[in-house]
Amino acid sequence: MGIDTDKSAGYFPFYGRLANEQKTVLLSNLQKRRFNKGDIIHSGAEDCIGLLLVTEGQLRVYALSDEGKELTLYRLFERDMCLFSASCIMASIQFEVMISAERDTQTLIVPALVYKQLMTDSAAVANYTNELMASRFTEVMWLIDQIQNKKLDSRLAAFLIEESYLTSDNVLSITHEAIANHLGSIREVITRMLKYFQEEGLVKLGRGYINLTDTVRLTDMAKNSLK
Amino acid sequence: MGIDTDKSAGYFPFYGRLANEQKTVLLSNLQKRRFNKGDIIHSGAEDCIGLLLVTEGQLRVYALSDEGKELTLYRLFERDMCLFSASCIMASIQFEVMISAERDTQTLIVPALVYKQLMTDSAAVANYTNELMASRFTEVMWLIDQIQNKKLDSRLAAFLIEESYLTSDNVLSITHEAIANHLGSIREVITRMLKYFQEEGLVKLGRGYINLTDTVRLTDMAKNSLK
Repeated sequence: MGIDTDKSAGYFPFYGRLANEQKTVLLSNLQKRRFNKGDIIHSGAEDCIGLLLVTEGQLRVYALSDEGKELTLYRLFERDMCLFSASCIMASIQFEVMISAERDTQTLIVPALVYKQLMTDSAAVANYTNELMASRFTEVMWLIDQIQNKKLDSRLAAFLIEESYLTSDNVLSITHEAIANHLGSIREVITRMLKYFQEEGLVKLGRGYINLTDTVRLTDMAKNSLK
Repeated sequence: MGIDTDKSAGYFPFYGRLANEQKTVLLSNLQKRRFNKGDIIHSGAEDCIGLLLVTEGQLRVYALSDEGKELTLYRLFERDMCLFSASCIMASIQFEVMISAERDTQTLIVPALVYKQLMTDSAAVANYTNELMASRFTEVMWLIDQIQNKKLDSRLAAFLIEESYLTSDNVLSITHEAIANHLGSIREVITRMLKYFQEEGLVKLGRGYINLTDTVRLTDMAKNSLK
């Protein structure tokens, strides 16, 4: 459970530009934490555990409406840093997201106050944070475009292809409910659409799994949405 | 057309934390620019005029789909700073927005390269930029929640109330087409909904105007959307 400081330093692109004292502060305050698949890591703004750096695994960042409807905003993979688990470090972050582990996930945590101090003192850290936020902003803008301008058939096809890529498997073990939560839809609508996909020969539905039988056409559908 | 440097300095919250040399660089590079109502100020990423500071007037920042469908992301008012008119200063901003003047608007422009240099050198400027981006991110997250979870009747009511507030007038001179562009909808749908509002006694429609006859119920509708 020890922390390999040399390896850890490599995760922070700004490390080389810190003063020696700041390097020590960063490394000596790092915490290692493991999450199990399915764990809710962060739920809303009151909860500010710090910046999460994914060293292994996969996190899902999603919005949750007042009525409990979910919408996946983006995912975080190895070497990605999660800013919104430390949203308390920035006064202007006035929205809440949920974060869950989609696989067993190993993280390094920079405590919120430690990161805030580094960011206040170091332009390199502050600018790195800017780029981080701009990347997430880009993903959310892409999502808005999808929601506004792509039909659900196209978004569902894109989701299935992405899942297949992430799991390196054409057979997905995922419930219709879970897909609905990713796409901000409801189970009934996803089930209806998947049945249509099956009739079209794009997938084969089984008990608890979806077999992607025509990934070429699915990929094509994901790209060429009908308006 | 001269620039009042004392007054200008007051627009930049980080000004007091700049070195003297940086203060000079900022103020001596400021440009004053006026836009007329309806002008397109910025169209996509290739166009990087610099950070716009609104000293008078009103800007609209919106997304434009491949098919020309618009969606208002947020508005900028006096003292607001527009980051995305200088998106070239950050490599991770990989999305495009449009910016237009909704009223005759007076701005101060900080050229992109000047701002980028200040941001690189000064943690205060970089952290200010972070807060700026976080504010816009918050507005966009609010919009996602609206699009996903509120019905169009509620969003239209909210839009009419906001317009009325911005123009200090219960009679709005706005076309159905323009409203559709704000809400990411199409003219026909807005017209149908406005006719329904009229039947309900919420508005009175005229040639080229919409009279808000029951702002209390409209405000209520804006808050309590039916899912």
